[in-house]
Amino acid sequence: MKLKEYFKKNLKLIDDYMDSVLPAESEEPQSLYSAMRYSLFAGGKRFRPILAMTVYKMFSEDYEKILPFCACVEMIHTYSLIHDDLPCMDDDDLRRGKPSNHIKFGESMALLAGDALLTHAFTVFLGESLNAGVDPEKIVRAGEIIGNKIGIMGMVIGQVFDLESERKPIDLKALEKIHRNKTGRLIETCINVPAVFTSIDNSRGVFLSLQRYSSLLGMIFQITDDILDVEGNTEELGKTVGRDEYLEKATYPRIIGIKKTKEILKSYVIDAKACLKDFPDNEYCDILEGIIDYLVERKK
Amino acid sequence: MKLKEYFKKNLKLIDDYMDSVLPAESEEPQSLYSAMRYSLFAGGKRFRPILAMTVYKMFSEDYEKILPFCACVEMIHTYSLIHDDLPCMDDDDLRRGKPSNHIKFGESMALLAGDALLTHAFTVFLGESLNAGVDPEKIVRAGEIIGNKIGIMGMVIGQVFDLESERKPIDLKALEKIHRNKTGRLIETCINVPAVFTSIDNSRGVFLSLQRYSSLLGMIFQITDDILDVEGNTEELGKTVGRDEYLEKATYPRIIGIKKTKEILKSYVIDAKACLKDFPDNEYCDILEGIIDYLVERKK
Repeated sequence: MKLKEYFKKNLKLIDDYMDSVLPAESEEPQSLYSAMRYSLFAGGKRFRPILAMTVYKMFSEDYEKILPFCACVEMIHTYSLIHDDLPCMDDDDLRRGKPSNHIKFGESMALLAGDALLTHAFTVFLGESLNAGVDPEKIVRAGEIIGNKIGIMGMVIGQVFDLESERKPIDLKALEKIHRNKTGRLIETCINVPAVFTSIDNSRGVFLSLQRYSSLLGMIFQITDDILDVEGNTEELGKTVGRDEYLEKATYPRIIGIKKTKEILKSYVIDAKACLKDFPDNEYCDILEGIIDYLVERKK
Repeated sequence: MKLKEYFKKNLKLIDDYMDSVLPAESEEPQSLYSAMRYSLFAGGKRFRPILAMTVYKMFSEDYEKILPFCACVEMIHTYSLIHDDLPCMDDDDLRRGKPSNHIKFGESMALLAGDALLTHAFTVFLGESLNAGVDPEKIVRAGEIIGNKIGIMGMVIGQVFDLESERKPIDLKALEKIHRNKTGRLIETCINVPAVFTSIDNSRGVFLSLQRYSSLLGMIFQITDDILDVEGNTEELGKTVGRDEYLEKATYPRIIGIKKTKEILKSYVIDAKACLKDFPDNEYCDILEGIIDYLVERKK
């Protein structure tokens, strides 16, 4: 199957599922449910849930079991964007080509929509994974991994490192620490949770390669983001180009220049593709290869 | 055992446990861990975890199994206070007699400290309950209940109703809906989670009385809060007296006057005590009675 079709098909599957686990906008309080849905269905690429779905399918057929996690990871991603755009954080008015959540609904509602999405991500993951027949112990272990990777051992500390790096000179090592936590850890959950669910976390060799693949994917994702902030255009990107520069954010191009940045990106792509040889040789492994190229070639 | 001693003993137990599941302030990023610890150890009464501990002990001896939830519910309570105090919400500078989190650490760090506490609450609950030997299926089911009661079927929608009631005339029914969600649902988890863990949720009669007790406790807690905001003093209370009036918040005294408010409070106390007859007749049942009086008589 072509990558584009595969993405389209799975995007619809995931969006329909997310729609089913969120209250309708007609329910009360409409303000909150509208704010949650506004950002969740704002045209996201669904890169993380599709990655999780693909890894799961590479090892197991009953993909219904991973759907609750797919919704969970996208809700977590969306909560992080809403809070990140708030005036006290990056103060960004534009997201995915539309007004940011707080511009549309006001700051207090945006704060609560973020809180609600984070909370609902856990609710859906726990309750619906159980309903789908996943072994409860696996759910608990995977839930703990998610919590660590998006909390005080991952995403949130990445945000803190990022805030503290603004308007300060930092080196490449410090920058990688920001990215590994802020972007990387959530992407890693898309490997770890399917691995726990399919018991692949016990197969040492494959699991190590999967982890390496996901770490590299996180770096590739972030470096491409940094390049797009310099070379992309606001309309295609759906967010303000040059925002990193304006905020004096640490980025690859700012620290090592655009040429060196692209060289590093290229070497990570080679390393990520090298991981694939340890995966089962099926169509989903091909998709995982396609995802690497997709990340590098994306315009938004 | 006297209530005061019981509270003191359990407060220490819970605080020591929470200290053990949070990173030290000396670890990096110190800013975040300091901000989390600042509000978590700001002298809270630990009413919710002590309630959960007591309900658990009424039915079972191995209280180590409920400790992770005790930490979880207090972290969730703390996250809600930090976000609630933010400038875009109640904009309150004082909490528990000290500067609010955002006054001390800045808005962006307060936002992240709240996000981190909410996330870590789930991490600790899942991972440490499993380590303590709780049946995984019970952990998942209880985790889903927590998520619902603090998310889009509880605490967060209570906040939304509360925001939307500001500077607007509302009636008693609407006010009760705010309180039931904003304050009540989290208190209810302190009954529901121990009930699931000790399998009491299968004993229909006792469970129904427990649920009724917890709902009434939530109302008693909130009505007392409303009265304290009128009659308390800022120093003892540790937060700004008259804040509700200033924000034109809906409160019992504003809607039905202080005299009628106290009458309702009295009737709820009688109803709550009537639930106790269905509980096992042991010392923990006595503590649950004492907790009702404690809530009414508290000065903060």
